[in-house]
Amino acid sequence: MNIKRTFDRDSLTEEEIEFLKSFTKKCRGDILRMTTLATSGHPGGSMSSIDIYAILYGFCNVYPSDPFNPERDRIIISHGHTTPGVYSALGNYGFFDMEDAVLNFRTAGSPFEGHVEKSVPGIEWNTGNLGQGLSAACGFALNSRLNNLNCNIYCVMGDGEQAKGQIGEARRFAVKYKLNNLTVIVDKNGLQIGGKTSEIMPDNIKGNFEADGFHTIEIDGHDFNEIYSAVKKAHAIDSPVVIIANTIMGKGVSFMENRAKYHGSTLNTEDCKKALNELGERDDIDELINEKKLNKPIKSLNKRTDNRFVLEPDNKNIIYTRDKNTDNRSAFGNALFDIAKSYKEKTDSQRIPFAVFDCDLEGSVKTGAFRKEFSDNFFESGIEEHNAAVISGALSSESILTFFADFGVFGVDEVYNQQRLNDINNSNLKVVCTHCGIDVGEDGKTHQCIDYFGIINSTFGFKVIIPADPNQTDKAVRYIASHKGNFVLIMGRSVIPVILNEEGEPFFGENYEFKYGKTDTVRKGNDLTIISTGNMLTHALKGYEMLKEDGINPTLINISCPSDIDVEDLKSAAKTGLIITIEDHNVKTGVGTAIGTLIAENGINVKFRKLGATFYNSSGKSNELYKLAGLSPQDLYNAAKKEI
Amino acid sequence: MNIKRTFDRDSLTEEEIEFLKSFTKKCRGDILRMTTLATSGHPGGSMSSIDIYAILYGFCNVYPSDPFNPERDRIIISHGHTTPGVYSALGNYGFFDMEDAVLNFRTAGSPFEGHVEKSVPGIEWNTGNLGQGLSAACGFALNSRLNNLNCNIYCVMGDGEQAKGQIGEARRFAVKYKLNNLTVIVDKNGLQIGGKTSEIMPDNIKGNFEADGFHTIEIDGHDFNEIYSAVKKAHAIDSPVVIIANTIMGKGVSFMENRAKYHGSTLNTEDCKKALNELGERDDIDELINEKKLNKPIKSLNKRTDNRFVLEPDNKNIIYTRDKNTDNRSAFGNALFDIAKSYKEKTDSQRIPFAVFDCDLEGSVKTGAFRKEFSDNFFESGIEEHNAAVISGALSSESILTFFADFGVFGVDEVYNQQRLNDINNSNLKVVCTHCGIDVGEDGKTHQCIDYFGIINSTFGFKVIIPADPNQTDKAVRYIASHKGNFVLIMGRSVIPVILNEEGEPFFGENYEFKYGKTDTVRKGNDLTIISTGNMLTHALKGYEMLKEDGINPTLINISCPSDIDVEDLKSAAKTGLIITIEDHNVKTGVGTAIGTLIAENGINVKFRKLGATFYNSSGKSNELYKLAGLSPQDLYNAAKKEI
Repeated sequence: MNIKRTFDRDSLTEEEIEFLKSFTKKCRGDILRMTTLATSGHPGGSMSSIDIYAILYGFCNVYPSDPFNPERDRIIISHGHTTPGVYSALGNYGFFDMEDAVLNFRTAGSPFEGHVEKSVPGIEWNTGNLGQGLSAACGFALNSRLNNLNCNIYCVMGDGEQAKGQIGEARRFAVKYKLNNLTVIVDKNGLQIGGKTSEIMPDNIKGNFEADGFHTIEIDGHDFNEIYSAVKKAHAIDSPVVIIANTIMGKGVSFMENRAKYHGSTLNTEDCKKALNELGERDDIDELINEKKLNKPIKSLNKRTDNRFVLEPDNKNIIYTRDKNTDNRSAFGNALFDIAKSYKEKTDSQRIPFAVFDCDLEGSVKTGAFRKEFSDNFFESGIEEHNAAVISGALSSESILTFFADFGVFGVDEVYNQQRLNDINNSNLKVVCTHCGIDVGEDGKTHQCIDYFGIINSTFGFKVIIPADPNQTDKAVRYIASHKGNFVLIMGRSVIPVILNEEGEPFFGENYEFKYGKTDTVRKGNDLTIISTGNMLTHALKGYEMLKEDGINPTLINISCPSDIDVEDLKSAAKTGLIITIEDHNVKTGVGTAIGTLIAENGINVKFRKLGATFYNSSGKSNELYKLAGLSPQDLYNAAKKEI
Repeated sequence: MNIKRTFDRDSLTEEEIEFLKSFTKKCRGDILRMTTLATSGHPGGSMSSIDIYAILYGFCNVYPSDPFNPERDRIIISHGHTTPGVYSALGNYGFFDMEDAVLNFRTAGSPFEGHVEKSVPGIEWNTGNLGQGLSAACGFALNSRLNNLNCNIYCVMGDGEQAKGQIGEARRFAVKYKLNNLTVIVDKNGLQIGGKTSEIMPDNIKGNFEADGFHTIEIDGHDFNEIYSAVKKAHAIDSPVVIIANTIMGKGVSFMENRAKYHGSTLNTEDCKKALNELGERDDIDELINEKKLNKPIKSLNKRTDNRFVLEPDNKNIIYTRDKNTDNRSAFGNALFDIAKSYKEKTDSQRIPFAVFDCDLEGSVKTGAFRKEFSDNFFESGIEEHNAAVISGALSSESILTFFADFGVFGVDEVYNQQRLNDINNSNLKVVCTHCGIDVGEDGKTHQCIDYFGIINSTFGFKVIIPADPNQTDKAVRYIASHKGNFVLIMGRSVIPVILNEEGEPFFGENYEFKYGKTDTVRKGNDLTIISTGNMLTHALKGYEMLKEDGINPTLINISCPSDIDVEDLKSAAKTGLIITIEDHNVKTGVGTAIGTLIAENGINVKFRKLGATFYNSSGKSNELYKLAGLSPQDLYNAAKKEI
């Protein structure tokens, strides 16, 4: 049947309802086939959500033959474990070959994974860790606003996940920013893995959404006309809307209905046959089991277009001369403003494809100049870091150059898992973390992000850049703005001197080009090599000078890209016989550790020592704290003297 | 004045009100002295909260001379940056020398840090990263229930932080568990760093608390009688209560009132003098500045008693024989049940000092037997991991042996920052993470916790233990239950064979004693050393056998305590000439990296290779995924052959 993809009519036709009945019967059959064949998966919630999926994937502006059209509606599945439902709706609508999904569901190497993954056409965002989908949907809604797209954004959620706090954050953001093209549908089947939602963690979905300013509509989630009409109604309402769809877990098979067991348990072959019979679906399970054994190749899927946007590199820079000491975060703020302004001037456009997210720290992370000039592109997310991390990740995966600027403890430590999922989603996020290290000073141990590298290095995609001074910061900002992928730019809090070369000119000045992964040799000597990261370079230079006065000639190296350390440079450094690393980071998981293991793996013969934080430090001036931490110039001097 | 510490009266006496006026005048003066002297800190919110602090620290059951009495009321400060207010109330009530706090606030090495820290008597929980205080308060409320203490729990919060989702999680938990001795007071001054709360992130505090089932009371937060009466009223109400206290940021100094600037900015000396004059406080700022320069030693503070509870070690064990293969998580569940039951039998007590926290995964993390027998000690926290992590951390710091059992991606990745703050709080938490590694199987990449070690190793206190089989798991569970401190116990998902010695008997059987940090030599050979962690040992053993068949004799080592690797054992292993590590973990941040850097630091001369995960894997049977990851026995065999 050729469905007219619109919610403009008052109700569905008789014919459409008949079609949907037969369509969802087939889908329910496929849900059971898929999970029984895989002997794992989540049939229960798939069967409670399937009528919603049938309406959304059937009547929204999404097209099986053109699944990545930028003007399409975005349907985000927050309860990502309902893959059997989602895939059966998408497959039966023709987004891909349904049999491929049935035969290869949850099979190693297949795209039809256990939780929704965006390698499958129709899927917009990988979820699975609950409570993140609404934030992603907010990101897609912002994309529609910034790119002036006439589309709707839908987020389908479970009821168990409503306990998660991040959903409240997303609600408040959606209301604050009037994301009125956003419609949430909660599949309220009343059950979760452990039993009744009202017993596991009682919640008040309607009350919670209303308190935060959503309009609520309550419907029977198995009545096609009610679903259709609610969506139509939602489109007309001048606020974000939640449709609370009362459903039945396992709907359609009598012995599965309302049984929490079927949240995450599958039917054995016998029960599957019974269920297919009850549905009136063909019992083909034995044939499929045999078919699966053949391991036939999967038909290739439509490939997602890479819309991630970055700037053309240019050679513009702001140079900080020796009389212009500042903190790296100001250099970031200046560079950010400069690249946005340059883009606007160059393209002569009204709107710029930029977004900057802040969590009530604009003054500290220095995004104020950007906000003042580009207020439509600045999103003040309040003290809601989890939400801001996911929104910015989702938005960055569309054609918006997105920065998320925050203190290190919030931008990395608090939201590590959100960043991990952004990375899995192949986002293009530029995370800018200020106030990293012991250098956070008086705010004390809870605010000392001394794990930025150790943490984010546990993702595969995020690259860490730790510039040493304002000049290197300026170039690093321009670098990440013009290169695709996820980056975390690390900076401390303090004003630091411009790093100078031996001639007294800015080391990272006019003649310096930021090449990702390149090691900077700041001073050259033969007696040992000091490797410093970030704003430790200022202190390392002082230690260097103390050693020089003693007649010891160190090489002093700056590593700003610890995710990709040049092994050849380490081999050269090893020729001095001793390498000492110094960093404002937990010594167990920092750059020194990365270097140490490279030394071991490459059989580099050198004496090796590392200096870094070994305890949660105190609250005070950062130079005082460095002394307590054993990271002062004197400590570096002592360490070098001891080993030489 | 001798305050009668009770909320039993209808209102305060005239004399008490006069006292409080003069007391808070002094406190406001001290807030300004402290922050001006430190040239940093948060005076604005301190001055809006101080009247609340004066009532709480004055009338609750907290005693300056006996600050750690177990029966005391617990007052948790969630907006931890209001230290100047908290310290001025505590100091002026005599919990410590007020002048010490004034002179040493935010000074390196002093206990009077920028955010509340529990080394200061009167402080119950370090906060500073917002949104966590209410969860900690829930933990203290559970402590009062489990230890049958007749005390009240108070949580004072800011209004800016109400945007944080975790607070909603804590609300729902408090209502579910009827934590009716919990009273929340929100200092609603309407401002946060960036400006008006209603503009930064509009929220509906009353609506949000009511939707989740709290009773709400609204008061003038600068009227002593209203504060006092509201607390009295809250005690009588049969549900958790929030008192929304309307206040004025900077209250008491005309030019500071209602100015967001003073959230985090201090007065210079001149303005401070003006402010002290306006308050009618002595202008002693110049004297104090001179005094501060003397760096006089701080009078020693009352030392917190360590109430953290662990079991006496005993020699009981469950032995899994070769015909009793199971998964490590079942071995955990069995051990947990066994130690609780043994404790109950041994002590013949009605209540056991145990708590187990679950996030809707009881069936998977195998805590069901415990729940059935000890339902009063089991806390089903629903899909609210951030909240559960903090509650369990706070409870563990009191005299309750606390386990938090969850999938690795939730217990570590999602809540890393909460665990970091637990660690800073010196908690005694036993985190049990199941479904770690690629071994999570069909749930796919979003659920693969392949960073458990890299992440948690960035704390200083948490120790990671990765048992290799059910026998070692049993012993590791008993070890963490009988040793103080924070531990993360790591296990996969699959059923794995009991590891046998060369005689075919359980390697970790009756004669095996779990000694923390000890390396297990599972097989002995001279040609190379394979180092395996956790349930990789099963696969490593297969690789070992393949090599043996080829005439190659490896040593096979199991490292279950990677936070503290024995360097001498590495030196011995190096004598074989080649070390290969294999782990179900991101290769960049795993045990192999820790070993590599130890090799480099200790100048150990050995060829070194590491195998681990190098990409986000797929969804499928774990053995299939290991093949994709290059972590199968064949891959280990190939790696060894290549290097020999």
